[in-house]
Parts: sequence; structure tokens; C-alpha cells
Amino acid sequence: MSSVLDLTCDLIARPSITPIDAGCQQLIASRLATAGFTIEHLRFGEVDNLWATHGQGEPVLVLLGHTDVVPPGPRQDWTSDPFTPEIRDGVLYGRGAADMKGSVAAFVVAAEQFVAAHPEHPGTLAVLVTSDEEGDAIDGVRHVARLFAERGQRIDWCITGEPSSTAVLGDLLRVGRRGSLTGTLTVRGVQGHVAYPDKARNPIHLAAPALAELTARRWDEGYETFPPTSLQVSNINAGTGASNVIPGTLEVMFNLRYTPLWNAQKLETEIHALFDAHGLDYSIKWHRSGEPFYTPEGRLRSVARDVLGQFAGKAPIESTGGGTSDARFIAPLGAQCIEVGPVNATIHQVDECVRVEELERLPELYRQLIERLLV
Amino acid sequence: MSSVLDLTCDLIARPSITPIDAGCQQLIASRLATAGFTIEHLRFGEVDNLWATHGQGEPVLVLLGHTDVVPPGPRQDWTSDPFTPEIRDGVLYGRGAADMKGSVAAFVVAAEQFVAAHPEHPGTLAVLVTSDEEGDAIDGVRHVARLFAERGQRIDWCITGEPSSTAVLGDLLRVGRRGSLTGTLTVRGVQGHVAYPDKARNPIHLAAPALAELTARRWDEGYETFPPTSLQVSNINAGTGASNVIPGTLEVMFNLRYTPLWNAQKLETEIHALFDAHGLDYSIKWHRSGEPFYTPEGRLRSVARDVLGQFAGKAPIESTGGGTSDARFIAPLGAQCIEVGPVNATIHQVDECVRVEELERLPELYRQLIERLLV
Repeated sequence: MSSVLDLTCDLIARPSITPIDAGCQQLIASRLATAGFTIEHLRFGEVDNLWATHGQGEPVLVLLGHTDVVPPGPRQDWTSDPFTPEIRDGVLYGRGAADMKGSVAAFVVAAEQFVAAHPEHPGTLAVLVTSDEEGDAIDGVRHVARLFAERGQRIDWCITGEPSSTAVLGDLLRVGRRGSLTGTLTVRGVQGHVAYPDKARNPIHLAAPALAELTARRWDEGYETFPPTSLQVSNINAGTGASNVIPGTLEVMFNLRYTPLWNAQKLETEIHALFDAHGLDYSIKWHRSGEPFYTPEGRLRSVARDVLGQFAGKAPIESTGGGTSDARFIAPLGAQCIEVGPVNATIHQVDECVRVEELERLPELYRQLIERLLV
Repeated sequence: MSSVLDLTCDLIARPSITPIDAGCQQLIASRLATAGFTIEHLRFGEVDNLWATHGQGEPVLVLLGHTDVVPPGPRQDWTSDPFTPEIRDGVLYGRGAADMKGSVAAFVVAAEQFVAAHPEHPGTLAVLVTSDEEGDAIDGVRHVARLFAERGQRIDWCITGEPSSTAVLGDLLRVGRRGSLTGTLTVRGVQGHVAYPDKARNPIHLAAPALAELTARRWDEGYETFPPTSLQVSNINAGTGASNVIPGTLEVMFNLRYTPLWNAQKLETEIHALFDAHGLDYSIKWHRSGEPFYTPEGRLRSVARDVLGQFAGKAPIESTGGGTSDARFIAPLGAQCIEVGPVNATIHQVDECVRVEELERLPELYRQLIERLLV
């Protein structure tokens, strides 16, 4: 068994459902300490974070990942136990195989190989791993980044190991992510009987023109490689179930994915102005999941394009699509951020898997990125 | 104890929660048979209906009522047991006291008195009672009316004993009811992740302009004594609860209360045209609860106005407000319909009650109506 496959299996066998780390970081820390890294365990609340560094001074390159996984769901839906790694027909199955214990194992192997070859390399190579990327993400990298800001910890480049590839390893390079903002709107009316509409105020009727305007709005046309800012209503609920009762309140949950042309504050102000203009009695509870980030053309993108091109056999697509990742917390520190990892076809699904051949090439991909950036 | 109070108490003591009759109709039938009425029991499904007639030929006057009551809710919310009639301070308490065992008892006493005084009266006096007015109302008067249509049973006048009075007996004469139509709309989209709106179709967004138009529409300005036709959305639901999932379908339940300027077919056609114009992929499940009915000026209204005026000490308000009643099924047979009954302040509530003095005047009110119409 190769070293990266071995380590990935050892990590999968630890059932680290968010925010439980289940000993993963201890295993990683022990390997990196042996390789000469300085280890710092940062536990906040129920969340474990690991900060391991080798070398000193600038530039600082961080490999960013997470040890936690999403719940596997019912055991019987899986072909084999989600926390018992199993190889069938050249494919490794287990929760976290692709998202992202394979990448974290590859970080460790790549870091070991790099510092063995370049014990006196310039700058700092760091590994940052959290046990809460899939959950609330409050005491994970968000908290660590706040600590770094206080300490004045500079980061030049950050490579997140999120599974970004779509068909073959290296076919997509993520160079940014949209921001995410969720609003939970409550519109208040007055409950009553449908036979006496004059004695009630129907919040669905009151809100309908505002919702039509909100959902029709075009926020921007996109920005550089970003798809346009999009608002989607994900939930709408009102009513008692009875056909003859006018409900007293309406609840609407919506989410915005937005480009760097916006920030959460600006969006909230615009949306309040829209509802104010409709004269509604309403309130909105906001949840800011993360501001957008974007890494423009520069050293990191250029190096990554070259290396990924060799692995995929063609230039990677450079994308800012998809959801959010912990890179959103590192980017505001001034870091250039990219995301590079294995094929994401099975993540968050039953029978999550990674091809063994792809997993075994991953340390070499990260090692080349590190070498091109630090040497 | 007077005869009507006696009989009302006997009926209240039978816990006839819809569609259970609990022996009420047997009691009524036995009294009317003794008075010379011909009795027909019409049981459809779980529902008991009683059709009792005296005399023959035209005109046909029907006294329409129901023996079923709405559930009382928790016993401890009531001051005394809902199915144990109790008089406190001149007020009779019990489920059904006002809606409408008091009226049914008064029908029986008025009918007994009338046929005793006029054994050879012209035309037909009939009593029609069902055990499903408060429920689905499928196998109650709706079913009986279908049977009457098949038989060619003519009805000239129908007096429903629903509690119509607002402050004192006879202060309101109901001369019509709006129709009621419920639609359950399903708008189909394509489920997806909020980060990839291009791969999904959000049914909330697709429907929003149509819902704004539907809820803003003014259907009419009212008709004679009818309040305007009104559409109210009573329920709206979409979403999985998660903020990041675009729902696949939207469900909207709405109810129309409408004047005789409309019928269910016309309304359904208009609403389909509206949704068609918005190009939605949708379906609507319709439930027609009853067409509107209206009794214009004529013999029945004129007689009722006189009689009620004597009882209330002033001319009654002639109204078409409120919910629906079983008169909606009798009116399409060509009958003039009115509703006259006791004060409705406590119906469907805990400690439902009727003033004993008011209850004891009720048979005389119905007897005068019968006499003025048939003699």
C-alpha cells in the first residue's frame, strides 16, 4: 500500500462527523512533527484546529483542509461501511474519501517529501486543518483567521484541498468563490376568517408584489470569471393548513450568492429598501456565511495553471463557481487563494469514493505546487 | 320545563359529533310521527338524514337543520360538561345549544303546534335534518338534494335554523350566502442547489408575478346585499427547510367567497387563464364547496321581515354575509331560502349557550312563519 492510500484509509476509519475530529489531527500532527514541523493545537469550543509550520519568514504558503465529514446517513444505503475504507475495482470507498481526507493525506505526504528534499527551503510551509468546515464553521477556520489577524500572521498563498476536479484530476482550478448571505423574512399581517377579509390583513397578499420585485431583480451581470449574483428563495411558508383561515404571518427564507461587486452590508441595505418601499410590517434575520473572494492573475494562478495542465493533459478551467469553502476566511488576511483537489462527483453522497490511481497522483501535484512556489 | 327546553336538553345529552347522530333523529322522528308526519330515514354512508312531511302537494315549505355538532375540545375548558345540559342564570349551556339543537327542537314544537291547529293545511310542511352539516357535507343535504332532483321533489320555501341573530332574536334575516371555492395550486419547477441557479427552475420565482396579480385582482364590487367577491390565499408552502436548496415545487391553497355574479366554473376558467398567461407548469385541484344563493324580494322575504320585526322590535338587517350553510344545496332546486335562528355569539366555542327566554320564543317564531306561508 502506498503511503497516501495508507494514511487516507487511517483517516476514513476515524468517524469524524462534524465537529468531532476523532483523532485525525493527532495522527497528522504526529506525522508532521516527525518531519520537523512545529505543531500548534488550537481548540475552540468543540472544534479542533491544527496549525503546523516548517521553515520561517516569508513567503508563507498554507495548505488548508478539514478532517470533519458530513454524516453518512443510514448504513444500509451504503455498499460497504462508510467508516471502513474498502477498495473495489481500483476505487477507494468511504465517507471523506473525496471530501477531503484524501487531500489532507496528500498534503502530509507532499509536505514530508518537500521538506526532505528542501530542508532549508525559503519562507514557511504551513498546514492548517479544522474539524468544522461542514458545520457551523464558527470555531473552525473563521476563529483561527481572527487569531491570525490579531497575531499579525501573514499568509501569501493558500491552497485549499477541496475536491474541485470534475472529470480528471486537475481539470478545474478554483480561483474564487461567491459570497453567501441568507435572510429569513417575517411579514406580519392579521389572522382571520376568509369570509371576513375586511377584519384581517393577509401577509401573503401584502408581500406578493415585493416578492415579485425581489425575485425579478437582476443584481449584476457577473464579474470577471464570476457568474452573476443570484438570489434564490429557498423556503416560503404561511398558513394553518385549513382553507378558511387567513394566516397571521408569512415566513420567507432566501439566499444570495454574490460577486465581489457586492458585500453583505450593501445587499442588506438594498433589500430593506425594497421591503420598506412596499410599506410592509416585516423583519429580517440575516446570516452572513462569508464574503466573496477572488484571486486575480498572478504568481499563484500562473503556477497552478502550469502544474494542473501537466496533470490533466490540458489547461484547467479557471472557475469561481460552486458553494463556499474555508478559503473565504483566509482571503481577507490578504492571501491569494486557490482550490485544487480530486474529482467531486460523489461528495456528500452514499458510496463516496476516489479512484486509487487519482489519489496516488495527488501528493505529487501538491509537491510540485509547493516546490514551484517556495523554491 | 317547557317542551322546547325539554327537547333541546334531550338532544344536547346525545353526543352527536359529526357525522354521528347519536339517536337525535330517532327522537325527532318519534315526536313528528306522533304528530302525524310521514317519516323517511335516508342513511348515506355514515350519515343519517331525516325527511318528515305532513300534508301534500304545493306549496312545499321545508324546515332545514342538523343534529351534528362540532367537537367540544378538552372537557376542562368548559365550565360544565358539554354534553350535560345545564342552566345557570337563565342560560342553557351545552354543545349544540345554539348551533343548532335549539332550532331543531323549536322546529319540532312549532310543527306539532301548527298541524294540531291546522290538520288539513294546504300544501306540505316538511322537516329535513342531517347529521353532517359541520363536516364534509358530502352524504348530508348535498346527497339528499341530489335524490330530490331525481325524484322531482319540488321545494318552494326553505327556512334554515342556523343561528343568524346577532344581539336579539330576529335582528338579522339571512337572505343568501356567498359561494365558496377552494383551489390547491401546484407550480412545478426543477430542484437544485442555490449555487447553481442555471441548473434549476425556482417555482417560487416563476409563480411570484402570477400570485401578485391574482391577489391584487378585484373581482367585483359586491352584488345587492352581497359583500364583494374575495380571494384569500390561506396557505403557501415550498422548501426543504435548508437555505441552500431551490425547491422543486410550490403549493398554494386559496379560497374564494363569491357573489351570484360568478359561479365556480367561471372563476376556475379566469384563474386558469391568469396562470396560463404567466406560462407556468402548474395544476390546480378544485373543491367546490357550494355555489352562492340569493333570495330576492318576494313572498318569503316579505313574510319573514314582518315576523322577525315583531320579535326583535325593529326591522331585521337583511344580510348575505358569513360562511356557508346547507341552504346552498336546497337553493339550486329552485327554492327560496332564508336562514333564521338564535343569537350566534357562542357557536363553535367553549361554553356554547342560548338564553332560555330566547329559546322559548323560538317555536312561536317558526310557527308564525309556517302559518303565514301555508295558511
